[in-house]
This record gives sequence, structure tokens and C-alpha cells, in this order.
Amino acid sequence: MDIPTLAKAVDAGPALALLRGARRVLLTGHERPDGDCIGAEAALARVLHALGKEALILNPDPPEARFRELLEVVDFQHDNGGPLPPHDLIVMLDGGELQRTGGLAARLIASSAKKLVIDHHVHDGDEWWDAAYVDVRASATGLLVFRLARELGVELDEVAARGVFTSLVTDTGWFRYSNTNTETLAVASELIAAGVRPSEVFREIFQRQPLHHPVALGAALARTELLLGGRLAVVDAPLATAGAPQVDGDDVLDVLRSVDTVEVALFVRAVDAARSKLSARAKGDCDVRLLAASFGGGGHAKAAGATLALPLAEARRAVVEAALRMYGGVTEGDGSPRA
Amino acid sequence: MDIPTLAKAVDAGPALALLRGARRVLLTGHERPDGDCIGAEAALARVLHALGKEALILNPDPPEARFRELLEVVDFQHDNGGPLPPHDLIVMLDGGELQRTGGLAARLIASSAKKLVIDHHVHDGDEWWDAAYVDVRASATGLLVFRLARELGVELDEVAARGVFTSLVTDTGWFRYSNTNTETLAVASELIAAGVRPSEVFREIFQRQPLHHPVALGAALARTELLLGGRLAVVDAPLATAGAPQVDGDDVLDVLRSVDTVEVALFVRAVDAARSKLSARAKGDCDVRLLAASFGGGGHAKAAGATLALPLAEARRAVVEAALRMYGGVTEGDGSPRA
Repeated sequence: MDIPTLAKAVDAGPALALLRGARRVLLTGHERPDGDCIGAEAALARVLHALGKEALILNPDPPEARFRELLEVVDFQHDNGGPLPPHDLIVMLDGGELQRTGGLAARLIASSAKKLVIDHHVHDGDEWWDAAYVDVRASATGLLVFRLARELGVELDEVAARGVFTSLVTDTGWFRYSNTNTETLAVASELIAAGVRPSEVFREIFQRQPLHHPVALGAALARTELLLGGRLAVVDAPLATAGAPQVDGDDVLDVLRSVDTVEVALFVRAVDAARSKLSARAKGDCDVRLLAASFGGGGHAKAAGATLALPLAEARRAVVEAALRMYGGVTEGDGSPRA
Repeated sequence: MDIPTLAKAVDAGPALALLRGARRVLLTGHERPDGDCIGAEAALARVLHALGKEALILNPDPPEARFRELLEVVDFQHDNGGPLPPHDLIVMLDGGELQRTGGLAARLIASSAKKLVIDHHVHDGDEWWDAAYVDVRASATGLLVFRLARELGVELDEVAARGVFTSLVTDTGWFRYSNTNTETLAVASELIAAGVRPSEVFREIFQRQPLHHPVALGAALARTELLLGGRLAVVDAPLATAGAPQVDGDDVLDVLRSVDTVEVALFVRAVDAARSKLSARAKGDCDVRLLAASFGGGGHAKAAGATLALPLAEARRAVVEAALRMYGGVTEGDGSPRA
């Protein structure tokens, strides 16, 4: 099957040359590696093995337990502060800023080996690499590994395919976000042909909640407040008493966003007695980056956050007041689609 | 792009011949038409229009409001009890049993026009049609319309593509269920190329909850009970007082199933003072059809239900006792994976 690809627009030649010439490859990623990072690493490690090369994955941090099925078949090591293992090529995946490798950064830059970045983010900082294969239009870094494997003539085995699939579903919100394009789904189709079972991957990655999850989520949702005629939804989460279960903000925000009228959803959690954390999500045309930025935070138009040096009640009041001003439709150029 | 298809295994010839020969086509579906039914109807209507034919959609019931974007551009009529509009071919989509067309059945069978069924369900009952294009391995009826359009040489426009996409995401749980295969995602990829925007379809269909949704869901989740070491999760929903918001059982069951340990999730709702309704969902190897059947209900291994002639408290007790027996791992052949 021909994959409708954007690959031709970005030159993969230098990356392919480095991969072809290497014998011992050290793969690394960003701190707290997510599904795209570890999925892409797993796939590239398998591809390099298939080419008879050594490949070792060394991340700043271990992967989350919910990727356990991938961890059982692919060796993920994390930094113990010691010297880097022998290598003649370093590949950083799913990030281009060296400092995102955390404590590994100094040892990586000191290495005399060639350095390659494979990523789909906008780069911000020094170009510390010998070659980069960066395509910001790719849904996931794993997709770039898929393209490279094709160019290298390596057919993905089931584990490599599962790695790329993990990348895709992580970064596209299981094919729901606007970065889901024709290439994403055509590649996903091929991954199923290579042995991936979507229903099993879904269970493995997304049905891993702890026992307390339903009750903790229920308690948070009971605190929902709707403002601006239902366009603004707010949930706050008080400081948990010792041992009490915490709810995941993303789960709350997903439910709030599922309400037809809601355009902006805010989750404000007490971090300690003096600090609170805001997570904001937008639907439609609203922009929550501006709201988060007004409290010294950042993020994207659709997902942003900030930490406030205020106790929960005051933080919540400040955030809601700012949101009412910004999305209340009174002034222009304030991120409101109905100004 | 070549779509990896199973189409060749099922002969579409008779269906294509009927469609090619028709001039005025009456499309119909099952009662309370779901996303697959109306998506497939919308797509086939557009394909027939593109071939210069008349096509009219007449269902037993109107579609749900959450399909409003499709309803704005495709004319969906529902039965008003009057005579059928002029037609020389009847096509029933997403169901093969005539009685599933409800009140329309008698008028459909009395028609002298040719009759065609396009469906992906196992058929149970009389073969009342002149031709059938039924493939139980297809993820959705919309997928069959996609195949037929290709055979008829019609390129799907954006509306037809949105119809097929609506079918696919409805019947595969947005590409998460085990009926998601290589063909599903290859077709979905082509639909995006034809203009479908997955993030917009997701918002349109799945982010349509009413204002009370977060609080109603929270109240239900607060009632979660976990049994069998977390393998069995139960939520009951008392009779709502007049005007009080009701929670959707599927939303509750989705949260319960997201818990790592949960294999069987039960939602028991009071229908009135004397009757209750069970909805059961299974993960992994468990089978809830047997549980539902033991109360006179039915369904599939992974999703089943029953109505009990018992008030809520008694119904809940009976259901939980049966589930503990069935999944408690004491006897064999009871649907328990750990027997």
C-alpha cells in the first residue's frame, strides 16, 4: 500500500546516512518519557537490531508502568549517573533541546560520537547535532521512525509496530486530535497488518486506572461549576488529606469538555497550603494559553497551565475572574470567540 | 492507495446490479438509527445522487440530535405513517431483519420494488430481499457503502466521506474495539483525504453532553462498589426524582472499565418502582452475555443487558449475587476466566 506521506518535503538523507554508518547506537529521549518517546525508541531499536546493529535505550527517567507490555519485550534503561555505554552514534527522539535529557545532557554533549535528532516539535535552542530529521507536520516521532524504517528497507516486526502505534495513539489522543491526518491512519492500518491489536493496546495503555479512580473522579465532578451560560466549567481539588486518593486532572477536564456548551475547562488543584496549580483546556476557537500566561504559565492554545503562589480559594478566585474577563465577550482580542 | 479489503470474499455483484439499474431509491434502516445506520445512509444517498439517481432516506425514527451536522446537509425523513414515496428499489442498511424497520415493515414488504440489504450483522430470520450484500467481517455498514462506491466508480465527496467516517467511529468505538482492522484504518485515511476532519467529527458527535452531565456522572461514580478484589465493579442508579438529571449508563461503565483490575462492570438502574435495568460490560476474557441471559436478557460477550421485574435494591442484590457466583472462580464453565 502506498502511504500518502509528507516525508519528501523533509530530507531524511543525512539521518539515514548516520543510521546506516553506525554500529553501536545509543537512543535517548526527554525527561519523563511519554508514549511517543518510548514507542519511537522501541521501534528504532528493533529496526537497528534487524540491521545487525547494537542499540541501547537510555533515558533520563524510566517509562510509566502503563507501558509495561512494551517494557517486557524492549530493554529500557534509565540514567544511574554512570558513564555512557559504548556507542558510535547518539540519537535523541521526540525532542531537540539537549537540556530536555536532564542529567544526561552533559555526558551526551561530551561524547565524541555523531549526534542525530529525530523529532516532530518546533525546535528552540542550539543546533547541537550532526544531523536532524525533524518534521513538525508528523503526528508523532514514531511516524518518523516508520518512514526511516521504510527507507532502510526494514519491515517492522510486531514489537516495532506496537512501538509506532503507541507513539501515534499517544500524540493524537487516539486519532481524535487535529494532527490526525491521512498518513497517520494509513500507517496505523499497516501497523495492524504487522500484528498490532488496537483493542489490546487500548486496554494496556488506557485502562490502567487505580481502584480509587471512579470514586475520586466522582468526588471531583461533584464540584463542577458552570459559568458564562455553560461556556466556562471549573473544578477545584482541595489538598488531599494524607493517603487520600488524588484524581487525575486530565480525566476531569475530559468530562468537562464533553459538555456541548463548554468552550473553556479549568481544573485548579491545591499543591500545598500556599500554592495551587491551574490546568486549562479549550474547545473550538478559545485560546487558554493567554489565560495561563497571565499567571506566568504557558502551553498551547488548546492546553495550558500555570502554578500560582496562592492558596486554593484565592487561586481559584483569581483564575475565574481572569477567565470571566477573557471569555466573557466584553473586550476584543482577549481570546474570546464571541467578543 | 490500495485498500486491503475483504470485499472479494463476499459477492457484491447482485447489489451493484440493483443499484445500477435503479432510478428512484428508498433508503431505510433500523429503529432508533445509530451512527453507523445514518452514516451509511447519508453516504449511499450521496453516491446515488452522484450517479444521477434519486435517493430518499426514510427511517422508522429520527436520528439523534448529536448527528446534527450531518442532518443539516443530508435530508433524513422518518415515518409519519403515510404511504411510501415513489421508488423502484428499497435498500435496508445496517440490519437485515425486516421487523427492525418497525412500523415501516408492512409497507416495505408490500412494495413491488426490488429489495436490497446492505449489512454487517449476522442475519437471523427470513430472506425477504432480492439481493443482499452482507459481510460480517466489515467494521461497519458504512464500510460496505465505501466498497460499493468504489465499484460504482463514484468518488466520495466530503459529506459522503463524513457519513462513512461516522459509521466507522460509531461501530469501532473510535477505532478502539477489536473490529478495527487494516481495512478500517486504510479507509479512514482515505476519508480524511476526502475532507473529513477527525477532531471536528469528535467534537460534533462525542462532545454533546448536557450541562448536568459532570455532576450527574459524579454522583453515579460516588456510588461505585468494587468486589472480588476489584475484578467486579457495580454502580446503581436510583429512580430519578421528577426533573432530576439522569446519567448515561455507558459513561459510567466506561469509567469503571478504565480501572486496571476491573473485568466486569455492572450498571443497575431503577426503571420504575417495580422494574430495574441491568447493563453489563466485560473486559478481557469475561463473558457478560451469560449473566444477562440468566435474567432473561441478551447481548454480546462484552456488552449485554436485561430488564428485571424487581425494585432496584432487590435487582441489584440478585445481579451481584449472580455475578459473584459466575466470576468468583468457584465453578467451571461459568464465564469466569479464572475458574
